[in-house]
Amino acid sequence: MAHKEIKVFAPASVTNVGCGFDILGFAVEWPGDELILRLKKEPGIFIRKIYNDDGRIPLNPEENTAGRAVLSLYNYLKLDIGLELEIYKKMPLCSGLGSSAASAVAAVFALNELLDKPLNKNELLPFALEGEKISSGGNIHADNTAASLFGGFILVRSMQPLEIINLDYPENLYCVVIHPQIELPTSEMRRIIPTDIPLSLAVTQWGNIAGMVAGLMKNDLGLISRSMDDKIIEPVRSQKIPGFYAVKDAAMNAGALGSSISGSGPSVFALCDSKETSRSAGEKMKAVFASLKIESDIYVSKINKSGPVVLEIIN
Amino acid sequence: MAHKEIKVFAPASVTNVGCGFDILGFAVEWPGDELILRLKKEPGIFIRKIYNDDGRIPLNPEENTAGRAVLSLYNYLKLDIGLELEIYKKMPLCSGLGSSAASAVAAVFALNELLDKPLNKNELLPFALEGEKISSGGNIHADNTAASLFGGFILVRSMQPLEIINLDYPENLYCVVIHPQIELPTSEMRRIIPTDIPLSLAVTQWGNIAGMVAGLMKNDLGLISRSMDDKIIEPVRSQKIPGFYAVKDAAMNAGALGSSISGSGPSVFALCDSKETSRSAGEKMKAVFASLKIESDIYVSKINKSGPVVLEIIN
Repeated sequence: MAHKEIKVFAPASVTNVGCGFDILGFAVEWPGDELILRLKKEPGIFIRKIYNDDGRIPLNPEENTAGRAVLSLYNYLKLDIGLELEIYKKMPLCSGLGSSAASAVAAVFALNELLDKPLNKNELLPFALEGEKISSGGNIHADNTAASLFGGFILVRSMQPLEIINLDYPENLYCVVIHPQIELPTSEMRRIIPTDIPLSLAVTQWGNIAGMVAGLMKNDLGLISRSMDDKIIEPVRSQKIPGFYAVKDAAMNAGALGSSISGSGPSVFALCDSKETSRSAGEKMKAVFASLKIESDIYVSKINKSGPVVLEIIN
Repeated sequence: MAHKEIKVFAPASVTNVGCGFDILGFAVEWPGDELILRLKKEPGIFIRKIYNDDGRIPLNPEENTAGRAVLSLYNYLKLDIGLELEIYKKMPLCSGLGSSAASAVAAVFALNELLDKPLNKNELLPFALEGEKISSGGNIHADNTAASLFGGFILVRSMQPLEIINLDYPENLYCVVIHPQIELPTSEMRRIIPTDIPLSLAVTQWGNIAGMVAGLMKNDLGLISRSMDDKIIEPVRSQKIPGFYAVKDAAMNAGALGSSISGSGPSVFALCDSKETSRSAGEKMKAVFASLKIESDIYVSKINKSGPVVLEIIN
């Protein structure tokens, strides 16, 4: 065994990004989850403690996204060691920021690092995704997990077979995420979206997602901005987020390139061309929620290039 | 007036390209239309003759795609000169190769060149599109016209407002188009496509269109190949093309990157990584149609980089 104990960080992620429902996502520099993985004498996997979850996340590894993910990797590698996890939730639950994905990514990343990297990130992805089987009720989406694991902007080209594409993007792309302190269950936010859509709207949407990919790769901020338009999912989910359009307008008026719901919400994000614009957009978005008596937290960061990182190793 | 007479060529185009219904297209080197535009004493626009159309295309400029297009530009520029057109249809009508778009592009391009380029291509596009109002029955699509006018691979990011994106693509991309001698009215081929589609299929499709754009821009032939998958339009329209799946399989077995219906058909195209593969795929596709007693014509070419060109100028 290479190390005795390792502490890692895995980032939150913004998915859908306005026009790329279930296929587009990016990682942020913060918030995210920290996780300690520690060797133990007794064989098996144990979750010792979860911090900041108000006791809502089960400690049983089979029922825990990080536990289930790391267990699947443990079994695949035919390990018989003892492992103890401590999870520090440093991001809100049910926020639309990929909290369960961040924990699962942190867990498989930590085990892989502890073992001195037997697998590469592409190989780790299916194990990290095992965690999503718990939180999604079987209907797995890879966008948050892939964004958190690979960092940068990712495209889920296909789920079966699973294919993730890393997209180039402008160096100076910043993001502000605002998390209003309301909770919207992911399952409910999935239930309200339509099962069928007009072909004409689908064509509009695939023009935009194609434009978004071209804009990211061409370094064309104007094209990114014009393409961040979702006529299918945002109009439905936004109804569950008080003040959504006022918040979005505040971001756009502050100079954001685009703004929409992060994942299934309630977090709202805006992409910007500088840290200053992100900060200014964030303040104006927060003021709108405040006017509705909704507390909120703001996270400004660059797009996170690296994904999970090792914070500390004890040999 | 800069010149007395000009002869131009505008290329045919392949649209949809497997996964980009109504938004993706590219121009080919041949076939295409040739058009002569000649100064005349009597003011107004006259179509003198159309060659190779079996007398099916109206000579009245208002009812003719090239006439209507050039007339709209003529009116916009407030011209009072006399203009005579001769149109040489060097490609099949109702073939799914953008025949009407090629004529309209040739016409507005010719007039602009005759006048020593008062407008650029972006400015010409709306006038060329006027022609499509005739052939499409009011439901205009810009994919053929933009591909023929700009050349290369184009993305119709949005129709309202109209925005065309030129996509980079691999230098060695070849295309074979096979035109079986059957006719499928464009209006019928549009009527049979569904008005509503499952969201899950739309998500699959926008993963593929996003992958296609990324593959073209990253020069990734494998990604292009995997992304050229249409689960929405091809399954419906292919039923009207005898032997379609056998023809497609023949192309794929010959090593094509992907194959699908060109536009609304009946032409079938395959993208390939070399001229040799295109030729070999074309022969095998032709053999399938031949086995069904369907005559066909094959066109092998590189992607056409330039769009319309001047063939001759008489001063």
